[in-house]
Amino acid sequence: MGRVNISVPATKVRRNEDGSYSVDRRADAITAEEPLEIRLSGATITTTMRTPGNDLELAHGFLHSEGLIRQAQDVSNARYCAGATGPDGQNTYNVLDVQTASYVRAPGLENLRLTTTNSACGVCGSASIGSIMDKAYRPVQPVKLSPDLILSLPEVLRGEQKQFRRTGGIHAAGAFESDGTMIVAREDIGRHNAADKVIGHLMLEDTLDTPGRILVMSSRASFELVQKAIMAGFSALIAVSAPSSLAVELAKEAGLTLVAFTRENRFNLYSGELDI
Amino acid sequence: MGRVNISVPATKVRRNEDGSYSVDRRADAITAEEPLEIRLSGATITTTMRTPGNDLELAHGFLHSEGLIRQAQDVSNARYCAGATGPDGQNTYNVLDVQTASYVRAPGLENLRLTTTNSACGVCGSASIGSIMDKAYRPVQPVKLSPDLILSLPEVLRGEQKQFRRTGGIHAAGAFESDGTMIVAREDIGRHNAADKVIGHLMLEDTLDTPGRILVMSSRASFELVQKAIMAGFSALIAVSAPSSLAVELAKEAGLTLVAFTRENRFNLYSGELDI
Repeated sequence: MGRVNISVPATKVRRNEDGSYSVDRRADAITAEEPLEIRLSGATITTTMRTPGNDLELAHGFLHSEGLIRQAQDVSNARYCAGATGPDGQNTYNVLDVQTASYVRAPGLENLRLTTTNSACGVCGSASIGSIMDKAYRPVQPVKLSPDLILSLPEVLRGEQKQFRRTGGIHAAGAFESDGTMIVAREDIGRHNAADKVIGHLMLEDTLDTPGRILVMSSRASFELVQKAIMAGFSALIAVSAPSSLAVELAKEAGLTLVAFTRENRFNLYSGELDI
Repeated sequence: MGRVNISVPATKVRRNEDGSYSVDRRADAITAEEPLEIRLSGATITTTMRTPGNDLELAHGFLHSEGLIRQAQDVSNARYCAGATGPDGQNTYNVLDVQTASYVRAPGLENLRLTTTNSACGVCGSASIGSIMDKAYRPVQPVKLSPDLILSLPEVLRGEQKQFRRTGGIHAAGAFESDGTMIVAREDIGRHNAADKVIGHLMLEDTLDTPGRILVMSSRASFELVQKAIMAGFSALIAVSAPSSLAVELAKEAGLTLVAFTRENRFNLYSGELDI
């Protein structure tokens, strides 16, 4: 636990211009991937493959994204399961048990992960959007971003992607104030985990309700990331790569500004308005 | 259903060299993302966000990757749920019910998705690897690939990525014979879904047992993709981007050749041997 990257032997092969090959056997730093089992009052609700580190933030963010908790006070206790030992007898730090305050409604299995995008037999994009809109208890505060600000934020996030520079195989999420001030950045092998860590951090700082904030992702913009941004009260989501159809639909429905394909000197706005 | 990409209005913004902005409002093709609920004999076992198309392959491949079925004959019937209608009264084609042959052991909830990477309280990388090794009923046939072949395959796959050229936001998986002949390629917004579609295709063609085959992915190489490759009897996995620590560990344990960071003229070999 705790190792964010791991050194493994790799055979690095390069084809030279004359068609010959250079072969170099040496250590290569790769991103750590380990399962994290999140239990809610003893019951397993998900196992996610994540990069170890900031697991408490991840668990808080995940539970918030799923609509199971709203604020840090909803969790009375969170700790690594004491009996979670690996073959060497050491704690794996891969099982986290979260106890909620007594007033928090314990969810049935039907309210958990498997069913977040379900709706009886007629599962479809509209039903998926409806279920998120039902869960989002905080309306999105509209924001108008300037193109200069939009283009600057992925660059700032890139400066925080220390593990990416080492391994080339890890995503990042960053939370920014509406004036572009960075609040927190987190890296994880899963983009959704990186977002949950950022959201969990804001929750533990008790500042989720600050309006106008911007979530910046090093990845594509999926339905799930738009969901997390809306649940956490962000006003905008800026992604470096492509959006999906359902991400655009949900962003429009909720009034979230959605920017994607944010590259050095250009971006596409799919939802919301610009300050231009 | 059936639409692989969708045209949406987008505001395309570009910063010119003099600092001014060009703004162009027009239609942009983005990748379709829709939920697919897979039911096994009536019980929901997963809902995955996928790009519609080749859903039968996806369901077969998913069930195979999870160790729930081994061959096409294990499925007696698979069809879209007749009552799965959206707000317009039309079938959403987003709920697929798979009936297995009577001899297939019906899994309890404890054997399903949530627990694929679990093991009692001591969930850890070793336990995750152990659970895959227990499920893999077909040992990996070792293969030695030439650097020329390795470098050529992602290029061939790229030629099949028609939707990627349109939207820039969709992954691809391809299955190749050991001599480099392409068998099938599939695109999906989720890399794991693209792999499951390819595996389901091979299963429906009843050729999963052909030794020496190579799975090529446009993405990173995660633990989950190595799992799918091993379960489906591939001898090698070639990824365009980074591997994770657990992907490397599992590939080594199973004897799967694992190549990553496969770019124009170079690649890294993390498991297996080269024919050089």
